[in-house]
Amino acid sequence: MIDLWLIGIGTGNPDHVTYEAAQAIRDADHILIPRKGPGKVDLADIRRQIVSKFVQDGASKITEFDLPVRDASGFYLEGVKDWHDAIALVWSETIRSKGAEGQKVALLVWGDPSLYDSTLRIAERLSPKPNLRVIAGITSLQVLTAAHAIPINRIGAPFTVTTGRQLRENGWPEGADTIAVMLDGECSFTHLNPQKYEIWWGAFVGMPEQLLICGKLSDVSDKILATRADARKDHGWIMDIYVLRKLVA
Amino acid sequence: MIDLWLIGIGTGNPDHVTYEAAQAIRDADHILIPRKGPGKVDLADIRRQIVSKFVQDGASKITEFDLPVRDASGFYLEGVKDWHDAIALVWSETIRSKGAEGQKVALLVWGDPSLYDSTLRIAERLSPKPNLRVIAGITSLQVLTAAHAIPINRIGAPFTVTTGRQLRENGWPEGADTIAVMLDGECSFTHLNPQKYEIWWGAFVGMPEQLLICGKLSDVSDKILATRADARKDHGWIMDIYVLRKLVA
Repeated sequence: MIDLWLIGIGTGNPDHVTYEAAQAIRDADHILIPRKGPGKVDLADIRRQIVSKFVQDGASKITEFDLPVRDASGFYLEGVKDWHDAIALVWSETIRSKGAEGQKVALLVWGDPSLYDSTLRIAERLSPKPNLRVIAGITSLQVLTAAHAIPINRIGAPFTVTTGRQLRENGWPEGADTIAVMLDGECSFTHLNPQKYEIWWGAFVGMPEQLLICGKLSDVSDKILATRADARKDHGWIMDIYVLRKLVA
Repeated sequence: MIDLWLIGIGTGNPDHVTYEAAQAIRDADHILIPRKGPGKVDLADIRRQIVSKFVQDGASKITEFDLPVRDASGFYLEGVKDWHDAIALVWSETIRSKGAEGQKVALLVWGDPSLYDSTLRIAERLSPKPNLRVIAGITSLQVLTAAHAIPINRIGAPFTVTTGRQLRENGWPEGADTIAVMLDGECSFTHLNPQKYEIWWGAFVGMPEQLLICGKLSDVSDKILATRADARKDHGWIMDIYVLRKLVA
């Protein structure tokens, strides 16, 4: 039996880490860090930096493992499920190889383990079942709204959190006034009527490279496309997120 | 001109505080803490405890002020807007009385300033406009999903965050599979068909008094109602939150 801790760490700025998360990083016996292989963004460096910031000689408890590659050729959901199976296997092997039975094993989760993250679903596949502990972390959505100094909701009104794929395939969610779009690699807001929406966009939110643009979608859409393309070229990768709100007619 | 910092502090457990928030609490010249008056839950004690945890002699920079009472007799939105006007006036007077012009004034926001919180809307009403800085904090929704160790979304699927009032007045949001319900003083899930949904409920999430119940709504609805009523009687107040997911037919 192992204790498995999924620790939300925020979006790359070590100051996003909570006191609870920092204490868990100190208390863990092993910290597993995934490597995605050459040319992929695995954020392993940032995870290592966060460990060293909060634990002296933190490197000694880090174990890196190679993350399997997702097969994107077939149906999306099937591909994701097979990928989660494969990762669970690698976790099990890594934990066994460290003789970590009976110990506290931690994974550092970008953002929050509950929000568009697969670590909880992978943990469910482990056998025997671990004692799970989840520690909430600041999400990119919160860092975005903080950077723009906006409330996500209108007063007492609902909002929907969705993905770029959903927005492209299903359009604007029925009944929604405000949406937050995550996991969007394709600027899916370009599928909307730009006269009807306001956007608050951010890339690398909370990090030194942070970029922010907001305005009526028809005014700023091209600027976001160009800024995003340039930043992606400069950094070799990009993570962005945005909030869209219907303009009041 | 003043610098006005809205600092998210999580849900009452000082370990929810981020390193960024703790530093801001240390750096602020004045920290304003609202008092709601006798018999009301103002959480002023918890705010004072958080300040003392992160700043030596923190009490010396705290200024308490009396929060105006919201007129709940008329239309909801009008009542809220008048109330925000009244609070903005009290903030201005309090800041002026401390001679805080040119200084850093902070408010400690329960959860996150972007999520169902009025401090950003009140700050917009100040004249002259302050330099605003918003620091994200862990929300009760994140603490709830962490405590239940669940992802909020199904894989790649959207979810809607809404209020008890919305659920009562407008029913289940069109097209939604998963919803999170906040600001619900009335167990509004009782308005739904209990055969169709699963619930993950929590009260006082993240605090020592935390209560958690989950299951099919038809199995646990009565238990939640009874647990909530007892806890409210014992503590004199309650804050609860829940996630509902449609059962797959």
